[in-house]
Amino acid sequence: MDFETRFRAQLDALRDEGNYRIFADLERQVGQFPKVRNHGSGPDEVTVWCSNDYLGMGQHPDVIGAMVDVTRASGTGAGGTRNISGTAHQHVALEEELADLHGKEDALVFSSGYVSNWAALSTLGSRLPGAVIFSDALNHASMIEGMRHSRARREIWTHNDPEDLDRRLSAYGPEVPKIVAFESVYSMDGDIAPIEEICDVADAHGAMTYIDEVHAVGMYGPRGGGVAEELGLMDRITLIEGTLGKAYGCFGGYITGSAALCDFVRSFASGFIFTTAIPPAVAAAARVAVKHLKSSEIERMRQRRQVARLRRLLDAHGIPHMDNPSHIIPVMIGDPVKCRFIADVLMQEHGIYVQPINYPTVPKGTERLRFTPGPLHTDADIDHLVAALNGLWKQCALARAVA
Amino acid sequence: MDFETRFRAQLDALRDEGNYRIFADLERQVGQFPKVRNHGSGPDEVTVWCSNDYLGMGQHPDVIGAMVDVTRASGTGAGGTRNISGTAHQHVALEEELADLHGKEDALVFSSGYVSNWAALSTLGSRLPGAVIFSDALNHASMIEGMRHSRARREIWTHNDPEDLDRRLSAYGPEVPKIVAFESVYSMDGDIAPIEEICDVADAHGAMTYIDEVHAVGMYGPRGGGVAEELGLMDRITLIEGTLGKAYGCFGGYITGSAALCDFVRSFASGFIFTTAIPPAVAAAARVAVKHLKSSEIERMRQRRQVARLRRLLDAHGIPHMDNPSHIIPVMIGDPVKCRFIADVLMQEHGIYVQPINYPTVPKGTERLRFTPGPLHTDADIDHLVAALNGLWKQCALARAVA
Repeated sequence: MDFETRFRAQLDALRDEGNYRIFADLERQVGQFPKVRNHGSGPDEVTVWCSNDYLGMGQHPDVIGAMVDVTRASGTGAGGTRNISGTAHQHVALEEELADLHGKEDALVFSSGYVSNWAALSTLGSRLPGAVIFSDALNHASMIEGMRHSRARREIWTHNDPEDLDRRLSAYGPEVPKIVAFESVYSMDGDIAPIEEICDVADAHGAMTYIDEVHAVGMYGPRGGGVAEELGLMDRITLIEGTLGKAYGCFGGYITGSAALCDFVRSFASGFIFTTAIPPAVAAAARVAVKHLKSSEIERMRQRRQVARLRRLLDAHGIPHMDNPSHIIPVMIGDPVKCRFIADVLMQEHGIYVQPINYPTVPKGTERLRFTPGPLHTDADIDHLVAALNGLWKQCALARAVA
Repeated sequence: MDFETRFRAQLDALRDEGNYRIFADLERQVGQFPKVRNHGSGPDEVTVWCSNDYLGMGQHPDVIGAMVDVTRASGTGAGGTRNISGTAHQHVALEEELADLHGKEDALVFSSGYVSNWAALSTLGSRLPGAVIFSDALNHASMIEGMRHSRARREIWTHNDPEDLDRRLSAYGPEVPKIVAFESVYSMDGDIAPIEEICDVADAHGAMTYIDEVHAVGMYGPRGGGVAEELGLMDRITLIEGTLGKAYGCFGGYITGSAALCDFVRSFASGFIFTTAIPPAVAAAARVAVKHLKSSEIERMRQRRQVARLRRLLDAHGIPHMDNPSHIIPVMIGDPVKCRFIADVLMQEHGIYVQPINYPTVPKGTERLRFTPGPLHTDADIDHLVAALNGLWKQCALARAVA
């Protein structure tokens, strides 16, 4: 059997449709972010416009300090699964911090946000006999994989549509365990779920609510508890899932909820049980980031200012972007080859790094550039980005006019 | 729907059968390992006898130095998925180091060994139409979940039995893509696969070979390339999977193989694509550990010495342990309640921490204590352990005699 030929054929097909991915080879330099050293083709220094280190916490001195101190004191790795010698005191402290963040009894840290969704949903779906999971149509890959893995029955409801959710829930009797799974901020369109309406509908049917707040924690709510905190709805959500790898600038994922719920997932989730715990130093750094953003507003305020400024300037130059209430600014291109071409020009000629977002991250035909301005992007960075986009858009208009 | 009651009922059932897990709350102190501070019940300081930081690399000064330096220079997190701004130069360098370790064209780093198995097997199984995966009966949970997720047809062959594998492969024609998946060192029994015979059988049927070497890399082979390196068989394995979280003392998992194979998994595996890259500082630390163990033999020699010493003393005192050719010494107890009781006495009265290994990590009825002596366990540590076990075994014999 010639496996190599089969691998290459599928990779060639990806290339032919413009969806083959080339990773930028970058080196972050503390104090310079969002400017980074570029080891790939293009200028030696580029400005990152697509980072999920939304608030620049990855270079915050206190967060770095915690990671350095605990690495020095406790070493590099946890040395085991959480059950077999891998639970460090730093994991326990982080879980307390996260439970407090969301006003829940307990929390459980996973090796990634992907794994937390996958493990929690697959455990809930498979270990509650007869359960049905009601999943928003645009839920993240990690949730889809978790539900799929659970083999529980799934009902896909129209994105952000509580009425459709209500109709679908109504088809099942009160004896059926129901789990309503959705996100707060959808990362690719930047739109936000109608959380209160969804909770109302779920409550009416006795359903559990499961929310993914990975693109919201740290950034929304007075203490960074996410959109549910901002709207005063955290106590209406059964399970809040979040990440330490985006606004908190570190690594790892988590769930929070009742003590029994967290213990249930802890005790039965294969993806939690059979994997090495995150490094104690990473847990310590994440805890400092979570703690910091519980009281500091400056990062969130400055992020909102820069997001608003970029939107305003894009509008002023007639560059179309998706309207949404979040910090994510998608500029739709709608073609994978053009999307990569524009991103390449921005990188090569302007030192602007924005990864083209192609299939399978978004559906084919909805390829886009996705800008995430943060508190560390300067006004000059924004002006430079808008000028570059404006030049490209004018060239495109010219190309269309003479075509 | 009263979900809380359902969670509690299943947790109570676990407790009733003695399989409820209580995590030890530990704090590693650099320079002291395998002695650690204990924040749970029992003595303030305990000696860890069940760590997967098999060689103590988690406290090696060069490994710590790399993690500290890169945290200071580049910050705490990667800030994105590998595709969207999260590839750091340290990831690229680590992948080169790992490809070299195993003599392969390329490598791919994942957020854990669990995810690397899950993602690689689910991608191979689902994207090679008609593929059948031939899985050793004792493969790890992460491999089982990956195969299950792929929805490919599975054939479970008798553990470490190439003849049974041969029979099962023979049932499929040459046009069927076949993947033979197995481990080198099985972590719960410590036995080692007959790799050469398995490769011979796989070759005869044109099957791809997939080996999990997570409990072997760093410890076996002249450069730490695993059992396949030790036996000169690395070039006969299509895909070698390993971890950075055990003998390398850090965090993360990986696969190595041909450039096309790694690119195939990189391009199609959901569990690789949609997750934040490991912190650059962790990648840098892991690379130093891998590099160090390519040339340093002292850790492996001293580990083998201490493993042999513990076995010899257990034999001398008539304490039964499973015979195997690896560094893992299982002492069978066969009952979850007794297993926890003995572990509790060792912890509380002797400062010896060995986690009881109960279901679902091992089948019910095969509960055990599992000792992993390392280069940093002193002769006195071993004497202390054997004396404690000897006392317990004598008490048990006495109890049996008067019963």
